[in-house]
Amino acid sequence: MAEVSGGAGVRPGGAPRRGRPGHDQASVLRVAIDLFNRQGYDATSVGDLARELGLTKSAIYHHVPSKEHLLERALDEALGELSSALDAVGAEASYSPEQRLRAAVRASVVVLAGHLPAVTLLLRVRGNTPAEQAALARRRDIDQRLAEMVREAADAGAIRDDIDPLVISRLIFGMVNSLTEWLRPDGEAEALADTVATLAFDGLTRHR
Amino acid sequence: MAEVSGGAGVRPGGAPRRGRPGHDQASVLRVAIDLFNRQGYDATSVGDLARELGLTKSAIYHHVPSKEHLLERALDEALGELSSALDAVGAEASYSPEQRLRAAVRASVVVLAGHLPAVTLLLRVRGNTPAEQAALARRRDIDQRLAEMVREAADAGAIRDDIDPLVISRLIFGMVNSLTEWLRPDGEAEALADTVATLAFDGLTRHR
Repeated sequence: MAEVSGGAGVRPGGAPRRGRPGHDQASVLRVAIDLFNRQGYDATSVGDLARELGLTKSAIYHHVPSKEHLLERALDEALGELSSALDAVGAEASYSPEQRLRAAVRASVVVLAGHLPAVTLLLRVRGNTPAEQAALARRRDIDQRLAEMVREAADAGAIRDDIDPLVISRLIFGMVNSLTEWLRPDGEAEALADTVATLAFDGLTRHR
Repeated sequence: MAEVSGGAGVRPGGAPRRGRPGHDQASVLRVAIDLFNRQGYDATSVGDLARELGLTKSAIYHHVPSKEHLLERALDEALGELSSALDAVGAEASYSPEQRLRAAVRASVVVLAGHLPAVTLLLRVRGNTPAEQAALARRRDIDQRLAEMVREAADAGAIRDDIDPLVISRLIFGMVNSLTEWLRPDGEAEALADTVATLAFDGLTRHR
C-alpha cells in the first residue's frame, strides 16, 4: 500500500512525528480531488480519503489540517489559473474585442484541460460550505469578466447582436465547461481549444 | 408545516395507516428532487427529506419505499422525456439530416426546460448506485442517438466535416446540458430552443 512521505509533520499541539515515505501534500491533494469528483465532496470523509491512500486518519492529519482545507486548495488552483489566463488575455492591448473573446474561449479550454480535476471540482461545488460559497463568488467574477468580453465584441459589431450577450456568454462557456464531462487528462489541449473556438464562432453550418 | 396527504398508506408488513392531508407521492418526489439537486443525492438522507417536508421519517415511508425509489422515478422522468422527444424527431420522415439534427437540439432544450429539476439530477448522477448506473447506461444510449444524428448530417454534407462528429455532438449537447446551471423554471423554452439552435448552427460570427 502507499505510504506517508518522509519529513517531520507537526500536528497542532502535538510533538513532531516522523511520517513514512510515499505521500506529500501535493499527492494527497491529487487523490482527494479525484475522490471528491468521484463520490462528491459532501459524501467524502477524511476516513474515506485515508482508506484511498492506505493511511490511517491520523496520518492524513500529518499532511492536511482538514477536508475543507483540501477543497480550498483545489478550488484556489482552478480559480487562480482561470483568473491568470483572463488577465493575460486582457493584457493583450493589440487584440480586437473579437480576438480577445476568441482568446478567452481558447484559454478557458486550455486551463480546463490542464487542470481538469480541479476545474471539474470547481464546476460541481454547490455552495454548501463557506469555502464553496467563496469559490462560487470568485467564479461569478470570472463569469462576469467573460460576459463583459462578449458584450464588448457585440458592441464593436464583431459578433451577432440578435442574442443577448449574457446568454451567449453562458452558452459558449457552458459548452467549454461541459468538457469536464468527457475530456480525458491526456487530451490535446491546443487542438481542442481550436475546435471549440471554431465551433463557437463559425457554428455547425458548412460555409462553402 | 406541511402535512401528509389523505389516503391510507400501507407500510410493508404493517397495518394500513391514515396519513394527514398535504402531500402525495408526486409532491414528495418534487421536494426530493430539489433537495437532491441542492445538497447531492449521496449526502441526502430520508431524515433530511422528512425535515424538509415537515414530516416524520415513518410518514415519508407512507409515500415512498426508499430514497433510491425517488431517484429512480426522477431519472425515469428525465430519460423517458428525452427518449420520447428523440423518437418523435426520428419519426419525421420528411426531415433532412440537418433538419433532424436541428430538431433534436431544439427538442433537447425544450425537454430540459420543461423538466428542469429531473434533467438536472440526471446530469449529476455519477453511477454510485445501481439506479444511477442504469440511468447512465440509458443516458449513453441517448448520447449515441444524438451522435448518430450528427454523423448522418455530416455524411450528407449538411454540416461541417472538419470536426469529428462525436466531438461536435458532445460540444453541442454539452452546451444544451449546461442550461441546467442557470436556467430558471419559468424560462421561455421555445425561444431559448431557437437561440441555442441558432448559436449551434450559425455560431457567434456576424454574417453580413
